Amino acid sequence: MKKMILDLDTGVDDTLAISYALGSPEVELIGITGTYGNVLLEQGMRNDLAITDLLGHSEVKVYPGLPHAEKADSFSVLPVSEFIHGKNGIGDIEIPDSSRRPESQSAVDFIIDAVKTYGDDLVYVPTGPMTNIAAALRKAPEIKDRIGKIVLMGGALTVCGNVSAWTEANISQDPDAANELFRSGAPVTMVGLDVTLQTLLTYKETKRWRDLGTKASTFLADMTDFYIKAYETTSPHLGGCGLHDPLAVAVAIDPTLVTTLPINMQVDVDGPTRGRTIGDNTRLNDSHKSMQVAVGVDVQRFLDEFMTRISRLAEQAG
Amino acid sequence: MKKMILDLDTGVDDTLAISYALGSPEVELIGITGTYGNVLLEQGMRNDLAITDLLGHSEVKVYPGLPHAEKADSFSVLPVSEFIHGKNGIGDIEIPDSSRRPESQSAVDFIIDAVKTYGDDLVYVPTGPMTNIAAALRKAPEIKDRIGKIVLMGGALTVCGNVSAWTEANISQDPDAANELFRSGAPVTMVGLDVTLQTLLTYKETKRWRDLGTKASTFLADMTDFYIKAYETTSPHLGGCGLHDPLAVAVAIDPTLVTTLPINMQVDVDGPTRGRTIGDNTRLNDSHKSMQVAVGVDVQRFLDEFMTRISRLAEQAG
Repeated sequence: MKKMILDLDTGVDDTLAISYALGSPEVELIGITGTYGNVLLEQGMRNDLAITDLLGHSEVKVYPGLPHAEKADSFSVLPVSEFIHGKNGIGDIEIPDSSRRPESQSAVDFIIDAVKTYGDDLVYVPTGPMTNIAAALRKAPEIKDRIGKIVLMGGALTVCGNVSAWTEANISQDPDAANELFRSGAPVTMVGLDVTLQTLLTYKETKRWRDLGTKASTFLADMTDFYIKAYETTSPHLGGCGLHDPLAVAVAIDPTLVTTLPINMQVDVDGPTRGRTIGDNTRLNDSHKSMQVAVGVDVQRFLDEFMTRISRLAEQAG
Repeated sequence: MKKMILDLDTGVDDTLAISYALGSPEVELIGITGTYGNVLLEQGMRNDLAITDLLGHSEVKVYPGLPHAEKADSFSVLPVSEFIHGKNGIGDIEIPDSSRRPESQSAVDFIIDAVKTYGDDLVYVPTGPMTNIAAALRKAPEIKDRIGKIVLMGGALTVCGNVSAWTEANISQDPDAANELFRSGAPVTMVGLDVTLQTLLTYKETKRWRDLGTKASTFLADMTDFYIKAYETTSPHLGGCGLHDPLAVAVAIDPTLVTTLPINMQVDVDGPTRGRTIGDNTRLNDSHKSMQVAVGVDVQRFLDEFMTRISRLAEQAG
């Protein structure tokens, strides 16, 4: 069975990503590495532990990642992130703290060890900034040739960004780390706003969770409704909320859900477009393409899988 | 037979585009509409007349377009354009002036009339700014539903620009006009730097023209060598010159030369990324896509067609 690591700044859609992974029999979630973004590192890890407990999977360990970009002194949550995810990251819905604590091993060392242990069978899914994987690649560059694949949620190649017209939120938190990853030659699939803004969830679907009536399903419904409501303000033209992070998990499990463009990418780190994800013109005619960028998505098939897998999990969890 | 209008700021690669069109038995070049960009409008039309004479096609009429963007008071050639195309636009190679003059009918009226006459059979290929077609769409909006297709050279969706990191030269001359075209709903195929920087010509190919020994072939060889030499300075990593404009003509004749992404596009007209070609997020989930953006190209097949068609023409022209 494929092994999966989720790298999360948990976050409403990160919670849905955990749920999708735990509801997928094809993969074993061997750990969550914590990062910052939608929330501070500590809050995200608190959420990871509480959510995995609630979903009946308290065997999933959580590893502490880096609290901010290497080139930054600190990190504060943007007001827009708080507006979208709530102050606690999970739509301001209260769920019990876990009695567990994050592991003492660092996220970076856990990632390196996991690549060495599982190699090709490992898929790493970062849905926040790329700070942890960039640090792992710096510490152990050889893992780029040994990891199965990296499927990230982030960036925007053919559409506008969501932090600025040219920058997507995850990449904007640490453009330098993302640029290191993109130029590393590691096998990366980018699942960005190009496709995640096409996969929308509405109150119709969350009502199905609420109707299931379990603790887990009610939590997911309430939390996601908070998120949909925020989208009504930030992106009224969409008619729902974007399923960013769970789509990356779904693509990691079944790549046929998206059509991809093979391309060597970079992140602009200088100039006014800092944070933009774009093709690297100097490697345009290099016949080896290390990255795939998702540019099309089978919306209905993904939504069906999303509802089936998460509903089943939420029902079983009770 | 399909009818073609070329809208040109002639220009080295515009000259190659004329040559490709005249060397293609599948289309009849019914006229050239003049624009500004690589050179001033007047110089471009002078070149169009002289080149069609030299290539043995003095039946091709030239129609005067607009001399600058609607929102600008005037236009001056950028130093980089002069460096790449020469002061006279055709690599500073001297060829005789034509005894002909541009027509009295304006480019805008000629385009509108041609759409009304040929409808679906008409393909319009702008390889400079979109000033003329935007003006035609403003004067006769109904032509957007009657024209066969528009295949433009310009823009950069998945790669960096060539005027700035986010802007391609043709679009940069008149971002507002390009935005009007992109949002108009007209059937547009964008052939941008994404693909044209993959189709490179080198001294090896121009030597084949020189070896043909005709006036026309020698002119094409000398002119293109000037252009390749400029590319050695501006884009040394490429190892040749980009065949921008002729690729658009080739795609207009044979769309299977490229793979395209169906997408509704816009041009950023405000803010620091003015001139960027990017997906229009507000129409991301509109199932009707009015545009196709070329993101892949069959390089070898295009180069073969390019050399075959232009060499044949240059030999016949004498």
